[in-house]
Amino acid sequence: MDALTELSSSFAGRILTDPSDMEPFLRDWRGQWTGAARAVLQPENVEDVAAAVRWCSANGVSIVPQGGNTGLSGGATPDASGNSIVLSLARMKRVRSVDLANDTITVDAGCILAEIQTAASEAGRFFPLSLAAEGSCTIGGNLATNAGGTAVLRYGNIRELCLGLEVVTAQGEIWDGLRGLRKDNSGYDLRDLFIASEGTLGIITGAVLRLFPQPSARVAAFAALGSPADAVALLKDARNALGSMLTAFELVSSTSLDMVVEHLPGRRSPFEGESPWYVLLEISDLGPEERARELLETILANAFEKSWVSDAVVASSVAQSRALWELREAISEAQAAAGKAIKHDVALPISAIPSFLDAADKAVHALDPTARLVTFGHLGDGNLHYNLSPPHGDDGTALAGLLSAMNQAVHDIVVDLGGTFSAEHGLGQLRAGEAARYKSPVELDLMRRIKSALDPENLMNPGKVFV
Amino acid sequence: MDALTELSSSFAGRILTDPSDMEPFLRDWRGQWTGAARAVLQPENVEDVAAAVRWCSANGVSIVPQGGNTGLSGGATPDASGNSIVLSLARMKRVRSVDLANDTITVDAGCILAEIQTAASEAGRFFPLSLAAEGSCTIGGNLATNAGGTAVLRYGNIRELCLGLEVVTAQGEIWDGLRGLRKDNSGYDLRDLFIASEGTLGIITGAVLRLFPQPSARVAAFAALGSPADAVALLKDARNALGSMLTAFELVSSTSLDMVVEHLPGRRSPFEGESPWYVLLEISDLGPEERARELLETILANAFEKSWVSDAVVASSVAQSRALWELREAISEAQAAAGKAIKHDVALPISAIPSFLDAADKAVHALDPTARLVTFGHLGDGNLHYNLSPPHGDDGTALAGLLSAMNQAVHDIVVDLGGTFSAEHGLGQLRAGEAARYKSPVELDLMRRIKSALDPENLMNPGKVFV
Repeated sequence: MDALTELSSSFAGRILTDPSDMEPFLRDWRGQWTGAARAVLQPENVEDVAAAVRWCSANGVSIVPQGGNTGLSGGATPDASGNSIVLSLARMKRVRSVDLANDTITVDAGCILAEIQTAASEAGRFFPLSLAAEGSCTIGGNLATNAGGTAVLRYGNIRELCLGLEVVTAQGEIWDGLRGLRKDNSGYDLRDLFIASEGTLGIITGAVLRLFPQPSARVAAFAALGSPADAVALLKDARNALGSMLTAFELVSSTSLDMVVEHLPGRRSPFEGESPWYVLLEISDLGPEERARELLETILANAFEKSWVSDAVVASSVAQSRALWELREAISEAQAAAGKAIKHDVALPISAIPSFLDAADKAVHALDPTARLVTFGHLGDGNLHYNLSPPHGDDGTALAGLLSAMNQAVHDIVVDLGGTFSAEHGLGQLRAGEAARYKSPVELDLMRRIKSALDPENLMNPGKVFV
Repeated sequence: MDALTELSSSFAGRILTDPSDMEPFLRDWRGQWTGAARAVLQPENVEDVAAAVRWCSANGVSIVPQGGNTGLSGGATPDASGNSIVLSLARMKRVRSVDLANDTITVDAGCILAEIQTAASEAGRFFPLSLAAEGSCTIGGNLATNAGGTAVLRYGNIRELCLGLEVVTAQGEIWDGLRGLRKDNSGYDLRDLFIASEGTLGIITGAVLRLFPQPSARVAAFAALGSPADAVALLKDARNALGSMLTAFELVSSTSLDMVVEHLPGRRSPFEGESPWYVLLEISDLGPEERARELLETILANAFEKSWVSDAVVASSVAQSRALWELREAISEAQAAAGKAIKHDVALPISAIPSFLDAADKAVHALDPTARLVTFGHLGDGNLHYNLSPPHGDDGTALAGLLSAMNQAVHDIVVDLGGTFSAEHGLGQLRAGEAARYKSPVELDLMRRIKSALDPENLMNPGKVFV
């Protein structure tokens, strides 16, 4: 019996080898990357995962873990060699337990993010991680890429929301680190090492996550501003007055808002006039909604006096808050309708954002004066999606030819200002080359030492993180 | 010129070799451990540290980093071999920069914690890490042990307060990871790996730390309760009503409070009668103090109705809040006056605390029915200092003979309930054996692989973390 037959027999009902069955697992959802695999395995529990890894190790086959396959950097797509198996964790979707006194939930890695939000809510609690793909991404993928999203300003990245992990090592052993502890200094921080390692050190199969009280008040506001520097001043003031009540602070350029209004039916600007920049702020609180709204109005009135803000609307209902959020969330969809785009996922010290935008806008237009600057993102976290679209009526083919030149121009400035070229989407295949280019030899050496120590045969998701 | 002469020459004015000069660096402040060293180096900057490590590596000498020498686990004391140098970072105490728009402060590792609190305060900001040794411990030591303290419930351990690190590797190279970013997924999380590694993987020389708005209201309350289960119920309710306004939730047993009142002049219980348990709660807020006090009173009134709480006082002034905190903070001093003690630094899921106390109290009294249970700690973090004192009039010699039996009895129960034997003080020399005993072979193997990968010659703080 050859090795694959043996695997097929031990994974009966949990293995795909037919090319058409495997096809959806071999390319990313946007169709940017396509690979090949010997088989797709669909483990149902952690022992299945350990057995799969042991088989791969014994047979020199590499292993590509996959959750909801919603990634933006190609981290879950195998290479073209065909010497991989794809390990889909989508069948491992049990909520293992909810501990109300400890304020934790323990879940399988294949749980869909939205299902965890729902489970928390049904238990009267709140799980704050929220991002565009929440209806189909899995928590294992969120952990493997240290997902951020829209609530990082208040609650942190998923790294800060995770207390413990269960991981299958490259040796096919199960590390039970499913501890629900706020303090544990009993050795090296393996949890945070596996988080964001994109499946290159081991496979996350379960996690203990923190829960929070459900906010009773959530109020959004939309403000018009003259410049990113005004937005940074408003952020500083809002953070100072609101502390952890400030749960979102999103920057939106007028180009971004115009694109939404142009391409998506029914969406319109909350303001009569034009303004070069906008900010979406959100307050959450456990107190009455009226108080949250008053606090927000006070901050905006002060910002108006200081001339940081020229106009503002505060939502007077949940539906109005929702409508303001929809303007922000529709930017990616609108941009997709406006031709082939070039995207960046950068983060900087918040103080460096205005200088970054000055320099990057100039550098982009030096390469292509017609490129539209679709700048938006999580200013409260220093994280911008600094994207470029072709001019009206252009499908973006010419701009796409400038991809590497644009990436380099933008990332050179980011790194020079103390920022990162990979804020929340992970390196995957897309940015592994940037890591090799921009990281110091000392940092790359430390990373390689760790990789060789934990995965000496380089079978765990090869071609990701490292080129 | 022999190697040490060469070192003396390149470290002129920054090296001690005279035994009496070295003596304070060779034992911990409580006098529990004493070691020997070839020299004590006092580097003034990161290049000095790198040069020292390269000299150690070239000469096969091990290196023991030391900050304020305030540790409780012997992590900064060299072994007795005399083949170490102690590297004191105390002269590296520059505040490198404060970035108000980014809400960060960048500091040398040798900065005293209290000086960082002051620098933040002078900039109109708040640095929340707070612990008993803050007047003499250094931030480098805090980071090397992932210090916790009294504000973890709201702000997290120092791990959550640190955005970036500068580290000298075991190869004597400088890793510049001093990034002030809230989102950075551009490779393995080296920052969190070095945090809590107790100098066994590299030497932390600088850090970027998060700052926060200064709370305008801080109000403490002291409540009398019948049982730890009542305290857990009150915690759940307070967390739910207050969210991140709840900044402290400390458990104090009547034995602990009695010891404070007995041994420290001028301290007295806030209550007329006796109660088996007490809780110290604190609210912090950016709003008016009056509102904070009302919220606290509402929660306590509800807890009284539910019979969780039999009596309570809410501080009506900053001085009264301070006086309540002093009762909690004086426990260690009072315990020192009550004879030689056995200490534990455990953490559990909060839901498991009542079962833990039931089982541990029985196990301790089975070994010594006269031992006094001095139970107190950070219940909001699941972290208890579960300490034992001898009976009145006994100096604790007999109890000290039971040290390992008591440690094992207590830690067996902790681990069985999903907890840890090392919550916030680190492993050092004291608990390295417990790590070897209680951690799974898989976890120890992962830790050893990382240690060998980053420090193949085992020169970085040997004998700590691993036995």
